[in-house]
Amino acid sequence: MNRSEALEIVKEQLTEHRYQHTIGVMETALVLAKQHGADEKKAELSAIFHDYAKFRPKEEMKQIIIQEKMPKELLVHNTELWHAPVGAYLVKKEVGITDPDILDAIKYHTSGRPGMTVLEKVIYLADYIEPGRHFPGVDEVRELAKEDLDSALIKALQNTILFIMKKNQPVYPDTFHTYNDLTTNRRHD
Amino acid sequence: MNRSEALEIVKEQLTEHRYQHTIGVMETALVLAKQHGADEKKAELSAIFHDYAKFRPKEEMKQIIIQEKMPKELLVHNTELWHAPVGAYLVKKEVGITDPDILDAIKYHTSGRPGMTVLEKVIYLADYIEPGRHFPGVDEVRELAKEDLDSALIKALQNTILFIMKKNQPVYPDTFHTYNDLTTNRRHD
Repeated sequence: MNRSEALEIVKEQLTEHRYQHTIGVMETALVLAKQHGADEKKAELSAIFHDYAKFRPKEEMKQIIIQEKMPKELLVHNTELWHAPVGAYLVKKEVGITDPDILDAIKYHTSGRPGMTVLEKVIYLADYIEPGRHFPGVDEVRELAKEDLDSALIKALQNTILFIMKKNQPVYPDTFHTYNDLTTNRRHD
Repeated sequence: MNRSEALEIVKEQLTEHRYQHTIGVMETALVLAKQHGADEKKAELSAIFHDYAKFRPKEEMKQIIIQEKMPKELLVHNTELWHAPVGAYLVKKEVGITDPDILDAIKYHTSGRPGMTVLEKVIYLADYIEPGRHFPGVDEVRELAKEDLDSALIKALQNTILFIMKKNQPVYPDTFHTYNDLTTNRRHD
């Protein structure tokens, strides 16, 4: 599938604002993939489809999570987490993409997971730092991402955990485990 | 065992500075226990013995962790965590205290755990806020502890997680799971 075919498919699923975000993620992902040695074609497609399920009704997403036996803890955490694993499922089912690397990059783009691939890190970070993103700390992550994906990811995860803790909300375990995985590995560098 | 017998035993295990800290924890634990309905006698003994293993050689603690099949993840995290579970083990073995409530309050006083008892919360917080403690945020936890143990504990755990993240170090999973347990339960209040 080429870029314009993919963009045409995803455009129908998104608001104009979210489509512009997707273009930003795609461009950022291509830069990061080139810099850090991820497959550029896979990065492009993962980025284009990363928010495919963003605007599905909550009830539909919930049914898919239950029916596909996705982690039950998703249901007790913020519903914002749902569109990532549900998106991977729907992109396979409705768009016909079967590459597991792309599907995993979509699946883990919001929570992260321990042992992330370079492609998964690229998509997670591209989503976090694309040019349309404006929030405290984003520029620091942008700078770090030029040098070292793991340092950028650690900072992004710290910002995310901090943001959730400030609201006295529980942190999705995969987010925490990803942070621990990256910081534990670095201690042995 | 009465207070002076217990203090006599623990004094031999501690530096003078740490003994004074222990007195502070004991007095604070008694106040919190009375306020929040924990058993005062158990709170007193748990507080007196909470740092019993603090100055054991690292190698001895490591051997006990391995031999007693304590969680392996202790060994890859900060050694400051070791004296709590090792302390519970040694207080039983060397001092002869067998009350599981007291032993658990000692065991979890540094990490916390999901489903903490009121006694465990009292000891965790007394250790955190006793009058000898001076660090940013401690006064806020002192104030919260007068009203509500869980709010105080959430704030203390947030401070701890933040402190560890600022050093780019991994967070002990029980600490994170305790925070999630408390904030998840509160959402249903």
